[in-house]
Amino acid sequence: MMLKTNDCGILTKEHVGQTVVLNGWVQGWRDFGGLLFIDLRDRTGIVQIVFNPEISKEALELGSRARNEYVLAVTGKIVERDPETYNANLATGEIEVQVTEVEVINAAKTPPFPIEDGVEVDESLRLKYRYLDLRRPEMQKTLRLRSKATKVFRDFLDENGFIDVETPILTLSTPEGARDYLVPSRVHPGEFFALPQSPQLFKQLLMIGGLERYYQVARCFRDEDLRADRQPEFTQVDIETSFLSQEQLLGMMEQLMARLFRETIGVDIPTPFQRLTYHDAIHKYGSDKPDLRFGLEIEDVTDIVKGSDVKVFASVAAAGGVVKALNAKGCASWSRKELDDLQPFAARYGGKGIAWITVKEGKWNGPIVKFFKPEEIAALTERLNVEEGDLLTFSADKLKTAADVMGNLRLKVGRELGLIDNNAYKFLWVVDFPLLGWDEEAKRFVAEHHPFTRPNDEDLALFDSDPGAIRAQAYDIVLNGYEVGGGSMRIYRRDVQEQMFKALGFSLEEAKEKFGFFLDAFEYGTPPHGGIAFGLDRLVMLLTGRTNLRETIAFPKTASATDLLCDAPSPVAERQLEDLHIRLSAKAVAAQAKNAAPEAQPSDETESQG
Amino acid sequence: MMLKTNDCGILTKEHVGQTVVLNGWVQGWRDFGGLLFIDLRDRTGIVQIVFNPEISKEALELGSRARNEYVLAVTGKIVERDPETYNANLATGEIEVQVTEVEVINAAKTPPFPIEDGVEVDESLRLKYRYLDLRRPEMQKTLRLRSKATKVFRDFLDENGFIDVETPILTLSTPEGARDYLVPSRVHPGEFFALPQSPQLFKQLLMIGGLERYYQVARCFRDEDLRADRQPEFTQVDIETSFLSQEQLLGMMEQLMARLFRETIGVDIPTPFQRLTYHDAIHKYGSDKPDLRFGLEIEDVTDIVKGSDVKVFASVAAAGGVVKALNAKGCASWSRKELDDLQPFAARYGGKGIAWITVKEGKWNGPIVKFFKPEEIAALTERLNVEEGDLLTFSADKLKTAADVMGNLRLKVGRELGLIDNNAYKFLWVVDFPLLGWDEEAKRFVAEHHPFTRPNDEDLALFDSDPGAIRAQAYDIVLNGYEVGGGSMRIYRRDVQEQMFKALGFSLEEAKEKFGFFLDAFEYGTPPHGGIAFGLDRLVMLLTGRTNLRETIAFPKTASATDLLCDAPSPVAERQLEDLHIRLSAKAVAAQAKNAAPEAQPSDETESQG
Repeated sequence: MMLKTNDCGILTKEHVGQTVVLNGWVQGWRDFGGLLFIDLRDRTGIVQIVFNPEISKEALELGSRARNEYVLAVTGKIVERDPETYNANLATGEIEVQVTEVEVINAAKTPPFPIEDGVEVDESLRLKYRYLDLRRPEMQKTLRLRSKATKVFRDFLDENGFIDVETPILTLSTPEGARDYLVPSRVHPGEFFALPQSPQLFKQLLMIGGLERYYQVARCFRDEDLRADRQPEFTQVDIETSFLSQEQLLGMMEQLMARLFRETIGVDIPTPFQRLTYHDAIHKYGSDKPDLRFGLEIEDVTDIVKGSDVKVFASVAAAGGVVKALNAKGCASWSRKELDDLQPFAARYGGKGIAWITVKEGKWNGPIVKFFKPEEIAALTERLNVEEGDLLTFSADKLKTAADVMGNLRLKVGRELGLIDNNAYKFLWVVDFPLLGWDEEAKRFVAEHHPFTRPNDEDLALFDSDPGAIRAQAYDIVLNGYEVGGGSMRIYRRDVQEQMFKALGFSLEEAKEKFGFFLDAFEYGTPPHGGIAFGLDRLVMLLTGRTNLRETIAFPKTASATDLLCDAPSPVAERQLEDLHIRLSAKAVAAQAKNAAPEAQPSDETESQG
Repeated sequence: MMLKTNDCGILTKEHVGQTVVLNGWVQGWRDFGGLLFIDLRDRTGIVQIVFNPEISKEALELGSRARNEYVLAVTGKIVERDPETYNANLATGEIEVQVTEVEVINAAKTPPFPIEDGVEVDESLRLKYRYLDLRRPEMQKTLRLRSKATKVFRDFLDENGFIDVETPILTLSTPEGARDYLVPSRVHPGEFFALPQSPQLFKQLLMIGGLERYYQVARCFRDEDLRADRQPEFTQVDIETSFLSQEQLLGMMEQLMARLFRETIGVDIPTPFQRLTYHDAIHKYGSDKPDLRFGLEIEDVTDIVKGSDVKVFASVAAAGGVVKALNAKGCASWSRKELDDLQPFAARYGGKGIAWITVKEGKWNGPIVKFFKPEEIAALTERLNVEEGDLLTFSADKLKTAADVMGNLRLKVGRELGLIDNNAYKFLWVVDFPLLGWDEEAKRFVAEHHPFTRPNDEDLALFDSDPGAIRAQAYDIVLNGYEVGGGSMRIYRRDVQEQMFKALGFSLEEAKEKFGFFLDAFEYGTPPHGGIAFGLDRLVMLLTGRTNLRETIAFPKTASATDLLCDAPSPVAERQLEDLHIRLSAKAVAAQAKNAAPEAQPSDETESQG
């Protein structure tokens, strides 16, 4: 076999006169004027190769058998094309290869979709034939960028003294958190490993173990109902440090992000990043992961309208709720239908509705205008900076709901007004998350992050008076409206840990039962520590301008946690289950019987996937 | 809290006069002459800090409360020690830190074993308190070297155009190979994912997908009965390439190994590595992973003794077996007991015995000597280079058994004679493995590597005449008697694949049923490809001079696949099993009931582990 001496896609006029061997796939072919032209593709790109009967009849004859996706090896001479036939669409467009010898290394069936960018093809077909999908230049580019991004992470962390440590995949099921994937043990009948939702316990144990700086590009698993932007297995860049303050850690991570964006996509990210408290994020942007590529801040007008004759405003305010307002600048021209659509829009986020006012020809219009007193109008005009052509919108509800409704309306308006610069990368830290949230069902506080998250030092006194007001030393890193990472400083003082458990409503004994060996570890000299984890899949999605996590993963799963390529999960042999000391439930047996019925029929999994 | 400005272990006379903040653990303490001396340890090493009442009474008082493994923050000035008190055992031994301020960050219970190298402590205790074990300098050093080794792999592969691609952990159960770990699916009742034994299918699919050069530091899983050098989850550096010859790939991997050893332990490894065929490895060294740090080759003497009056030699030779001989140079002085012990030694490797001859004062001694004819003695003398003081040993058996017995005897003699240089690193490639092995039970050929391994081109004709003689384009990389990696070129031609299936005894239809989607992929333009995987755990073991894989893994499992630290696997809630559509078998239920009986008793898992 003739093995390549050169890559296809990087041949230029500098190579003219050289004889090279190329290996690649047939991207396309055409006969013209007695010659055969083939576009030969490898991972670097495409080059045109020419079969000329005057150079080799034999090669022409062999080459003529090739069809799309055949694998060829060719020997040939690089020649410059006639300038009139330069192809500006190809990096190699000024040259071509005059073939002297060809070998058909492999044939190919006609692929189920064309191997080129921008094909309109059902995603399930692409996933089933992922090995063909991966040949498309945009997929290759994405995987290459992902590899590069991982490398930048590693290089930066390595240079800063972090040690890459692998933690177990076969580990312990934790009673808290999302649903675990379980793995039955053959050696220990009736016992199970769990796949880690994150290396949280192990990273903290490594700090107790004195490593001081740890990182891992870690596979994590959550058996949750999947959304478009979730995968049952995903990758996080997991980081933990000892003896660093939150500010030191955040500053270091800013440098890491700046380097990542510079070295992968050549974008300079200014540091330090903006910091926004959780409180301000919710109040001003209606979200704990606000998109700050545009302004359009939400205002609180509860104080102005609490005595209003707009009954819903007054009653919500009286009940401890809020009235949030967003001035959709210049949207007074929205159609009646668009305004009507605000009601189902609000409902989607749990809201009861959105009140609106249009400002046209100096006049306020809308169902609620007549209830406003002149001084309320004056105050709103000032607070919302009301101008001709504006659309004023209001949501009156509990803070969480009103914020959610207005936050999503802000995104919708921002998009529709074209306020969002798609080439901008706007990072921020959201800090001072609440430590505890009230669980209405359990009638007790629960940890918002986890029970080992460190409270703000100045809030410790609130454990006795107002635990719900305690802020955590927890932080999220947000980019363009996506949470791309998050973490916290961890509790290391025993007295604080005990206060935390008390606030969560369990005794130290109960805590020991719940957190077992992990609490023991805390008694042997725990250093102050804290960390962060970045979602690699999502970061790569943002770096490549994709909108779907599956595009960033070589072999992803569908929304029903299925691998369409290898058709996993699948039934297994009875003997395997016996070895593992488990049996199928009645429901599973019934499901299997049903699946087995239409034997020899191809699975219609492909069609049923979105 | 006072956060560190400097690391402990790298302070030298150059720092004298500086005021620093240090954070670390108390390694030890002593009062002397009214002063308190504490050895403070962080991950960089140890420095002596001194509490002097003339500098700060308060600091001395606080410092006096510290015990081993307390976490301290101290501020102090670096001063040179009196040269008489230099401590040559410490890198920081010429200086000490005069403490002006101290903060006890955390207390510690007395650890169950001292935090220092070379402690004699039961491994199960070390594993249970792994977070303390990891504080020991040799564990820190091992993890740091492992991190560095991984980095060298990545850097080299990155520079050579390899793309790091993550493949699924939740994947398909394969009917062949070792036992799979299974993961029940919640969404698909009765179906299971399997954890990958290696990314074999995916790496080949990536080549079909046109990536050309792939690597991954991949976690792999095998639910096998564990030996000292096996772990249920292990890490391999997985590599696959397209359009490279075996020689090109092996040459590149030699450069990789040379760089790994140079950059981690500063050892220069000469390239190219020696190549040894599987045939020669078995015949000359009795092993497919020979330790070539010493000679002591095994000789085949079947031709000399086949007509011998030593009945066992003659009968074995007549039955198609072999007589293998090893001259244990200078071992004629072995005691009678040592010679007698050769019989159980042989039995350990399936042999019937080892015949021996000592050469003393020019005379051959031993039970079989009298049966030899003079010409046989002459021929053996020449073949085995017999000299005064030698011990001649013989194993007559089937090739595999005789080779195994003699190969292990060779290692034993090499060790006892001190022939092995512990500072030598002797790499070699074992090549030309057989493609097929005869399965006596199934009465058919089975793939020695896997059914996609490429036969040697010149052996293709043997498919029809003598399939057992076909050599595979498969190779192992061996270091000092350990297999540290292995791989093969893969079949890419359909006709060869069909010949292979035929040799394995199944039709193309049966093959499709068995290998499903993977065979489909081969029909869309498969490039010639091949790869290798290195065992990272074992390489790190050899790089650090350890003899146990567990020492190279932060959180390893025991020989019974148990994590003693977090006590995994463990029972799970009934509700979790219901979600996953499985039930425990009767045996598992019984086992659980038995385990639950001695409630509130600590598990004796710790004691029962080796």
